This record gives sequence, structure tokens and C-alpha cells, in this order.
Amino acid sequence: MPGDVLVVRIKKLTLNRDWAKSDDGLDERALNSDLAVKVKENGKSIRWHLDRAAGTATPDPPAEHLKHYAIPLKPMLGCISAAPGTAQAPPGTGDSGYYGGNMDFNEIREGATVYLRVANPGALLYFGDAHAAQGDGELNGNALETSMDVELTVDVIPNKRIGDPRVETDTDIITMGLDGSLDDAFKEATSDMASWLEEDYKLTPSEIAQVLGTGAEYHVSEVADRNAGIVLKISKARLATLVK
Amino acid sequence: MPGDVLVVRIKKLTLNRDWAKSDDGLDERALNSDLAVKVKENGKSIRWHLDRAAGTATPDPPAEHLKHYAIPLKPMLGCISAAPGTAQAPPGTGDSGYYGGNMDFNEIREGATVYLRVANPGALLYFGDAHAAQGDGELNGNALETSMDVELTVDVIPNKRIGDPRVETDTDIITMGLDGSLDDAFKEATSDMASWLEEDYKLTPSEIAQVLGTGAEYHVSEVADRNAGIVLKISKARLATLVK
Amino acid sequence: MPGDVLVVRIKKLTLNRDWAKSDDGLDERALNSDLAVKVKENGKSIRWHLDRAAGTATPDPPAEHLKHYAIPLKPMLGCISAAPGTAQAPPGTGDSGYYGGNMDFNEIREGATVYLRVANPGALLYFGDAHAAQGDGELNGNALETSMDVELTVDVIPNKRIGDPRVETDTDIITMGLDGSLDDAFKEATSDMASWLEEDYKLTPSEIAQVLGTGAEYHVSEVADRNAGIVLKISKARLATLVK
Amino acid sequence: MPGDVLVVRIKKLTLNRDWAKSDDGLDERALNSDLAVKVKENGKSIRWHLDRAAGTATPDPPAEHLKHYAIPLKPMLGCISAAPGTAQAPPGTGDSGYYGGNMDFNEIREGATVYLRVANPGALLYFGDAHAAQGDGELNGNALETSMDVELTVDVIPNKRIGDPRVETDTDIITMGLDGSLDDAFKEATSDMASWLEEDYKLTPSEIAQVLGTGAEYHVSEVADRNAGIVLKISKARLATLVK
Repeated sequence: MPGDVLVVRIKKLTLNRDWAKSDDGLDERALNSDLAVKVKENGKSIRWHLDRAAGTATPDPPAEHLKHYAIPLKPMLGCISAAPGTAQAPPGTGDSGYYGGNMDFNEIREGATVYLRVANPGALLYFGDAHAAQGDGELNGNALETSMDVELTVDVIPNKRIGDPRVETDTDIITMGLDGSLDDAFKEATSDMASWLEEDYKLTPSEIAQVLGTGAEYHVSEVADRNAGIVLKISKARLATLVK
Repeated sequence: MPGDVLVVRIKKLTLNRDWAKSDDGLDERALNSDLAVKVKENGKSIRWHLDRAAGTATPDPPAEHLKHYAIPLKPMLGCISAAPGTAQAPPGTGDSGYYGGNMDFNEIREGATVYLRVANPGALLYFGDAHAAQGDGELNGNALETSMDVELTVDVIPNKRIGDPRVETDTDIITMGLDGSLDDAFKEATSDMASWLEEDYKLTPSEIAQVLGTGAEYHVSEVADRNAGIVLKISKARLATLVK
Repeated sequence: MPGDVLVVRIKKLTLNRDWAKSDDGLDERALNSDLAVKVKENGKSIRWHLDRAAGTATPDPPAEHLKHYAIPLKPMLGCISAAPGTAQAPPGTGDSGYYGGNMDFNEIREGATVYLRVANPGALLYFGDAHAAQGDGELNGNALETSMDVELTVDVIPNKRIGDPRVETDTDIITMGLDGSLDDAFKEATSDMASWLEEDYKLTPSEIAQVLGTGAEYHVSEVADRNAGIVLKISKARLATLVK
Repeated sequence: MPGDVLVVRIKKLTLNRDWAKSDDGLDERALNSDLAVKVKENGKSIRWHLDRAAGTATPDPPAEHLKHYAIPLKPMLGCISAAPGTAQAPPGTGDSGYYGGNMDFNEIREGATVYLRVANPGALLYFGDAHAAQGDGELNGNALETSMDVELTVDVIPNKRIGDPRVETDTDIITMGLDGSLDDAFKEATSDMASWLEEDYKLTPSEIAQVLGTGAEYHVSEVADRNAGIVLKISKARLATLVK
């Protein structure tokens, strides 16, 4: 129900196809004028071969200098979402926000848990946008877009308020700032983590600053969609030493 | 000489004191209004005990919930720099730019190599700002500020143009964007890496985009000084497969 | 039809009510930490009396220091829009983009002409969000929200491509950048004006830069919604001297 | 003395030469990728003829479409500054900050008053960077750079704290946000104006928001130097109605 948090545990992500599609564009957010001039002819589609036995992806056919270029398969879900609450038509599945959506964060992988704010009765979960692998930022606008079988479980934490989506992996707790610029996303990820440390670990404002100052790990998660994303990770091993 | 690149290899960083000083402030760049209100009373000095045998730092005295909080010592240099070329007085040592300076990047550690653009005869290298450990962003404005013995070697690559400073570790090549906002620093780090891949690996614009799209790893290096920093890392293992 | 431009001429805006509603909040985009702390208790509704004979609006009741505060009525339309083209549900009426929408630009007044990109057969024009007056930025999140009678005419320019919406007043041509940050909106407004000067005035890139450098007037139009807006105005008197 | 405010009244700005120098570049901050590609060959010097009798400037020689292009002369000072207080060497005269400096704001003209924070005994005022005219933003990196005779008077307000420089014209009070991005400059200009309204007009936080929401006028003052500038103007006529 609205006011709850949906807990989505990603149990298994299994690639079920031997190819993926991407491109060689670079998102506007990555371009200063030098780079804009350099890549002005880019934008063509690139096909990747997925070798599931070897666990690698290779461009198919490869460009001249990429004949031996192979990247590890790291299947992930680009989209996972509760339905946003709105009196109007909901945003499309290419967008993101407090409800989750098209976050394109490459640690939403097998074993990860995603926490989403519930805004509608029944939460109305959806997921998709299977990526065989993706660098930080999803710079090409597309990752290695493919198909996969997904197993996940869903749980509910009643009466809990969170900001933007949270993620938990074996090793880290992670807040995700999603906003119109990297600078604003950075503030949001930091503020959400401060709230998490305050609520679940009972830290004071001074303690929060000490933990963030010594333990923050920030990545750019995405620049390819309307919101930019920055994630803030804190190691669970470090948090385990906190006195509650 | 101007037009050359200075290659600084950090051979050894040895902590030589058993304490460091930091604080519990949070930099303005990290604050949205919620967090600004939450930490408005912060700003006091925090002393850290450095246990070099155990390899850990602990707040001294610790706040209530941080009684068992201990972080690994990861000594790093906040500042490393050639002198900027300028007809005017140079910027202070708190600033950063194409010449290096106060970059506060927590991978400038023992074993790293830093490449700096030379703007003056003799390059006029300086370094300092010893940090016993630092989270991404140097959120407190100060890291664990301390003292250390530094061993480094200096080499020159004649007649080479680079943009902002580059860093190389055992595992990665890294470009560093230093600019007035995270959004601009992001563009700069990306553009500098594109130039690196073009010049040293002979990649075409299309190949550059494919490698960045699948292999980029972006961190926020710093928000505590006048420039914000974003670093872009590409794995050397991956680059080793490129056909030159 | 898609590919055309819709020309909306605002003939008459007549206030038809003697009150408006606003509030005393300040949008997050306007707050640094000092200001966030200062206004942390703000957020209450403010009623304004509209004296249409005198042409002024006054807070009702006024706060202590605003007993004689009166602002000129300058009726404007916050929203004017063609329907966006999308396979998905359209964005809500609180959003903005190439299609127009909730732009909250205080020069969309009687006498102004708005040019909108058509993305659907029939264009599907809508308008609303009547403001009795509004400062730049719509800082309170609400302007003086009221009701008005609107007269406008609609025309079509076939087969013309524009970027974000354009506005024309008696004195100026105006491009509007709408994007996730002021920095990105600034680039967009500038780029759109460069296109306008190139297409309709046949200026070369060098001439465009000379006209912009000497004649640009930039305002912040809005910060209160998902997109920030910056407008770029060029005086028609100045353009009249250009040799086509 | 440090802690005072320097009041600089610009009495007279008289052009004393019949030419100025500018260029046809566009600053990086104005370029999205479309515009970067469009102007990639720009960057040449442009000479302007100043006709002081007619009060106009014209490109000399003019490009094809600018044969009749003439802009009004509006002499202004790009730089006006107290010396910054620093234990290190001061920033160069191309930079700006709380001390003033290279602000390139086109309303710092004859009749304007500039308020600067004093950081050194004697304040150590300097001024220069004579512009015959300049559009908002100083997009070319250079305005119409020329020479002029300057008459100004200097006064002191003892024991007064201000943030970034303030400007007063016949019609407006103006705060200037100078920061690494337009988004941050916008916050700073707004926060400084809130302080001004609080201190000199005794407004409460709610009243400040009402005055800003209905009366703010924001311009982009500059994008051509290290700091971006946004100015916030409030009409003195409106302020005259406030009850102190």
C-alpha cells in the first residue's frame, strides 16, 4: 500500500539469447566541444555476440582494433519499478524517479535487492531492459540490449519512508540519486544515505558525516536518460562495526 | 620543458605519525536542503588515531555509535603538481587544474603513476597534503590529514600533449576531469579518455565509443575544493586485447 | 501535421476573478545551505487580492512589512503546448519540453506569439495555468495562480523544424532552453538561437557569434518544475539591420 | 579594514578611442554538440569601429550580412575589485569571487554603485577591462575591448558583512552569484538577495519568499571566465513600498 516499501530480491538472471544490440553513439551529457566534433559521425548500430559458455561478449563483426576485444558478461536489469503515483498518466518506461524505473545501474544484478517506494495499492511492479553488460553511465544510450529469464521475489516493509530507490548487494548498501544533473543527483544520493544511516543505524549528524567522509564510494550510474544518476555505496563490513 | 609531460611514479608512502585530524562538516556541494538543515550544527574538528601496525584508523575519542568504527589505512597524496604556466601569480595550493594540484583523488597511492602537463622549464614539481585515508569526494573538506614520508621518481615524456592529469595504477588507466561542476568534470574526463584511446591505442571514434560504453568506470573523486573532480577508469586487462 | 510548426498568437488575456493563490515556499533549485536553513519553516499558502481597476495585486492579508506592497498585474499563461509525440502515455501537464508545456515564462503574455513543434496530426493544442503575475523563475513553485479569459489564434507553418519552443514579442525574438539544469538549458537556448539566425537570417557561424556576443539577453525563466528554463532574447530592432 | 564594505560609485565612463577588439568565438559553456560542430572553425579576431558621436559600434570591416549591423555603445567596466584576502598569492585579474574581480556584468556602467567586501587593510581597489558594449554572458570570451577614462568615488561602510559583490543602479538593487556553474551561481545570487532583504529591509523568511517570487529578475551576467555569473535584480520602486 502507499507508504510501504517494496523489497525486490533478484534471484537469478539468465541470458537466453546469443546476441545483443548496442550502438556507437555517445550521450550528449558526455560531450564537450572537442569530443562532440570528434564523434559527430558516430551513431550506427553495433551487434554483439554473447558466448554464454565463455562468459564473454564480442562485437560481431568487430572493428579493426577490436578484433580481440571481449568483455565479461554481467547481466543486469536496466528497469525495475513500482508504478509512480500520479493523478495523470504515468511517465513512460524510459524515465526514472523515486519509483525506480529506467535506472540503468550496472549493479542491479543477480543477488541484488532493490527497495522501491510504493505509491499505489498493489505497488504494480514491472521490470525489464535486459543488459548483457554495461559500463558506468550507459554512454552509448544503449547497453548490450538482449533478452533474459528473470527470477525474483517480492516482499513488503510496511510503513517505511524512503527517498529515491535503494539497492543492497552482498557487500554494500547503496543509495541512488536520480535528478536533472549530476550535481543534483550527487546531493540526492548523499542526502538519502544520510537518512538511511540516521534511521537504521541511529547515527547523529556528526557521526553521519564521519562515516560518509571516510567511507563514501560514488559512481556515476547513468547519463543516458532524462535523469542523470549517481550512486553512493557504503561497505556493509564497515557498517557492521557501528554500535546501535 | 613546456610541451613535455612529467611522469611521477609514487614509489612509497609511509605514515610517520600516529594521529590525523579531520572534521565532521559536509561540503556545500553535497547538501540539498534536507541535508543542509540536518547538519547545520556540524563543523567540529575530529581527531583520528592511526594504528600503523593494525593498519587502521579510529576516531579518538569516538562518538557513541562509532566506538568500534575502524577504517583501513590507505595513505594517499592529496596534492601533486607541476607549476601552472601563467604570466600572473599562480593559483594557491588549494586549487587544481591541468597542472594537477589539490586533486584529492584517493587512488593517488603507492604504486600509482601521475602524468602532468609541463608548463614551465623544470616543471617545478610539488606534492603534499598527506591523507591517511579518504572516502570519495573528500566530503568533510578534510580527509584524515597527517604526515608521511614520500618516495617518488620523476621522468619526462618529451613533446606530448595531454589535457587534465592522467593517472595509471596496476590495473587501470585513469583520466581526471576537474571543472566547476560535476557535469562539466564528467565531460572533461570522458573527452580526455577519448583522446588517450585515440592517440595511444589508435582507436577510431566508433571504437572509442564502443570501449567507453562497455568499459567505463566513473567515480566522483572530489567535491571539497573549487573544482569538482570526476575520474574515468578503463581496465588495463581490457585494453591489452586491443589490436594496435 | 508532424513536421509542421504551430503558431499561436495570444490576442487577449483578461483576468476574470479578484483573487489569486500563491505560497511562500522557495524552490529547491534556489537554495544553498544558508538559504535552506533560513526558509526551513516556509511553505504556507498566500492569498493575493487582484485589483483589476488599479492594475495591482496585494497580499491579503499582508504580512507586517508588506502592508503597502503592491505589484503590477501582468497576466500570462504558464502552459501552452502541442501534444508531445510518443508511443507511450504523454507526460503530465506539469512538465515541459520541445512541445511546450508548463514553461512558466513571464513574457508569454498578451501580444506574444509562441511557435511549437507539431508531433501529432492536428497538433492537439492546450493551454492554461493562468498567472496574474510572476517573477522570473516562479520561485515559490506557484505564481499568482488565478483564472482568465483567453483569446488566441492558431496558424501553421508547414515543413519547418525548430528545437524547443520559440516566442516572439513586439520587441524580441526569443528561444527557450528547457533542460535538467540551468547549465544545459543555457546551451540549448543558445544553440536554438544560432539555428534561428542561420535559417531565417542566413548568418554564417562567424556572424552568429558576433550577433550573440553583442546582442544576447538571457533570463532565467523557470526553476520550479522538472526542467529549468533559460530564455535568450535578441532585439528585433537589431535584427532589422541584418542584410539577408 | 577587513570586515568593512567598499562602496565604489562609477561617476563617469568616457570612451577615448575609436576602435575596439573582439572575436567570433563562442565560450564552451554555451555549446551543446550541435553548436560545437557548427562553430568549430570560429575563433578569429574582429575589429569594431566606435563612432562616439553617433553612439554606435560597427564591425570593421563587416561580414556580408552585417553591413548595416550597428549596436549602441554602452561603456562598462569588466573588472572592479578589492584585493582578495589570502595567505597565498592572489588569483589573477581574469578571475572573480567575493572580492569582485573580472565580473563582466554589463550593468556596471556610469551611475552604478558597486559594493565589495574588504579583505585587506586599505581594500586595495583596482578596476579595468573597459568594454564599449557587451551582450549578456560575454559569449565571445571578449566583449568590445577598448580604452576609457574612468571617474569614480570610494566610500566605506564600516563593519558590514556581504557575500558576493552587490550592485545598485538608479532602478534596481542587484546581487551577483559567482560560482562554478550557472546552477550554483543561481543559488548564491538568491541567497545573497535574501540576506540583503533580511538585513536592510527587515523582512521575515516568508516575506522574503513573497518578494522574490513576485519580483525577481534574473540575468546571466557571464559565462566566459572560470566562474559563471547570474545576477538577481529587485526593483527599487517595489522596495520603496516595504514597511521597515
